[in-house]
Amino acid sequence: MHEKFEFKLKATSGKARLGEISMPRGVIRTPAFMPVGTVGTVKAMYLDQVRELGADIILGNTYHLMLRPGPERVARLGGLHELIRWPHPILTDSGGFQVMSLSGLRKLDEKGVTFKSHVDGSTHHMSPERSIEIQGLLDSDIQMQLDECVALPAEPKEIERAMEMSLRWAERCRIAFGEQPGKAMFGIVQGGDIPDLRIRSAEGLKQLDLKGYAVGGLAVGEPQAVMLDMLDITLPVLPSEKPRYLMGVGTPDDILKSVALGVDMFDCVMPTRSGRHGLAFTRRGKVNIRNARHAEDMRPLDEQSNCPASRDYSRAYLHHLVRSNEALGGMLLSWNNLAYYQELMQGIRKSIEEGRFADFMAETQEMWAKGDVEAA
Amino acid sequence: MHEKFEFKLKATSGKARLGEISMPRGVIRTPAFMPVGTVGTVKAMYLDQVRELGADIILGNTYHLMLRPGPERVARLGGLHELIRWPHPILTDSGGFQVMSLSGLRKLDEKGVTFKSHVDGSTHHMSPERSIEIQGLLDSDIQMQLDECVALPAEPKEIERAMEMSLRWAERCRIAFGEQPGKAMFGIVQGGDIPDLRIRSAEGLKQLDLKGYAVGGLAVGEPQAVMLDMLDITLPVLPSEKPRYLMGVGTPDDILKSVALGVDMFDCVMPTRSGRHGLAFTRRGKVNIRNARHAEDMRPLDEQSNCPASRDYSRAYLHHLVRSNEALGGMLLSWNNLAYYQELMQGIRKSIEEGRFADFMAETQEMWAKGDVEAA
Repeated sequence: MHEKFEFKLKATSGKARLGEISMPRGVIRTPAFMPVGTVGTVKAMYLDQVRELGADIILGNTYHLMLRPGPERVARLGGLHELIRWPHPILTDSGGFQVMSLSGLRKLDEKGVTFKSHVDGSTHHMSPERSIEIQGLLDSDIQMQLDECVALPAEPKEIERAMEMSLRWAERCRIAFGEQPGKAMFGIVQGGDIPDLRIRSAEGLKQLDLKGYAVGGLAVGEPQAVMLDMLDITLPVLPSEKPRYLMGVGTPDDILKSVALGVDMFDCVMPTRSGRHGLAFTRRGKVNIRNARHAEDMRPLDEQSNCPASRDYSRAYLHHLVRSNEALGGMLLSWNNLAYYQELMQGIRKSIEEGRFADFMAETQEMWAKGDVEAA
Repeated sequence: MHEKFEFKLKATSGKARLGEISMPRGVIRTPAFMPVGTVGTVKAMYLDQVRELGADIILGNTYHLMLRPGPERVARLGGLHELIRWPHPILTDSGGFQVMSLSGLRKLDEKGVTFKSHVDGSTHHMSPERSIEIQGLLDSDIQMQLDECVALPAEPKEIERAMEMSLRWAERCRIAFGEQPGKAMFGIVQGGDIPDLRIRSAEGLKQLDLKGYAVGGLAVGEPQAVMLDMLDITLPVLPSEKPRYLMGVGTPDDILKSVALGVDMFDCVMPTRSGRHGLAFTRRGKVNIRNARHAEDMRPLDEQSNCPASRDYSRAYLHHLVRSNEALGGMLLSWNNLAYYQELMQGIRKSIEEGRFADFMAETQEMWAKGDVEAA
């Protein structure tokens, strides 16, 4: 058992990094994809399945969990791991992003943010200190600073103001978090699509000597090229001996290209959300299973996959289930998609270890470009 | 492998019967509970789980499957078993009941029924012959005659008319079904809540020398006592060497009391539908997991159960999932409920074998009456 949070860089291939985060609840192999367990459940999945697919860590949403079941209640029940039956590491976001995107009537100032719950309309206040307190009550292993994430496009002045305040909040969160050797609190780089602001944000956070750094405020409406530019500018500023987490990203292609720039951690609802809507990710790109071409195709999504959902169920059946709005459709496609994401991460890690990440990336993209198998 | 459909009565305890149906796709231990796989899926369950819980047979709804994916399509894909990955026996209803309850603008006469699909409003016609043809295209192992099921209360004249027509349809279905030694076609006793009509219906069907007999048109609004009276009157008329199936029933208590009268087979959406709405069936009766008393109760639904859903997940977590409308809530409670139903059937079968069904029934009802464990 590892008593202290520790990140080890084990190999590189170009800028891509192979690493390992060790902490009391387990080891996280990086680059890592963290399935999103919004309200204490990775939607339509048993957590045993999520684990078997190779997830070392999942993400919980502080905003959702503070509304339901509530952090004090979770603490009384022994913490989030105990409640949801996931003894491995959990990362929680700060709640800030969802406050901005989901809640009504928010009021934001230096002290924090006041907002109305999207569940019952009740009013809540969250300061940087309260965000860390909540994440502590949840017993989260990796906690995120409260930040303000601005949707792009936005005015430079507005981006700068939010970035500066996020920096000040990072410091307050660091103080609130204090000394917890087995856990970590990560800062979040902001600065929108403005290189100077991104650099200032990263430098400011670096001063705080945090245990890890996230890049936030990307994949919020800007083109992929802008996201990659911002990463390319930001990552070199961050200390190489700390893990780097790109928040809320993304497609398999986003992940490959971000790993190529040196990102270590990802989370995204895409595999589960897309799955519920009938979109499957496979070695040969995306498959819209609602499409009529699958209606009488008894082949599986990918016979070479190790995942039962991908290998054992026919496209015809998946098509029928999704068209009929049956729960099993979302269950199977979420399973397939999370399997594909973890298979991708495994391939990424192996290729970095072997010093051939660029080749792996090219091969993977080539398979996607080939597209799905011909119609039966 | 059994080439012929065959029913063996193995033991009795009072009027309760222990039996076994053998047919090419497998053996069905009776009394049996058949989970309902409406549209080719037992809602929110993997069929592997359904099998592991002890289901020897599941039910498919002809009405739903004829609309989606369509019987000709299912046949082209190799039949329902192949499509849904369930190699064991499947019973299909005739479609009549759902035509009456779900479709719009139906027109019924001697020839059959014309109705509008609840899915897309398209018009369909189903005759007794077409119902059997559809069930054949689905490759169903036990097929049901088309009947007309009258909702109670109803006028005696109306009940009689429907019963008489159902009898004539039974004969047409028997002819349409022809000789299929490995499969069976069951007739359905109708006659509402009128003893004479029930007896005439059962006697008429008996003349047709079918492989099995169902009792239909019960649990459609009448009190439980009326249902049991009708069974008590009907079952002695039916040949004892044929299996008896009570359609669409019911609660665990309905099942116990009907087994006591000699019923061999049951199906009901209750375990899965109730599960999706937060109602759990346990050894100690029903538990409404939405109730606030469970919000901080870290005990499982039933620590003595062999089912992971019942034994390993806390009430607090289930409560949270159901309150948050999360898919996993319905997945776990459907699993728990189907596990309880199959555990009940197993207990029933064992007690008949041991000649102590009446004791088992009393003990089981006593446990239900005790009610759920005290609040934590």
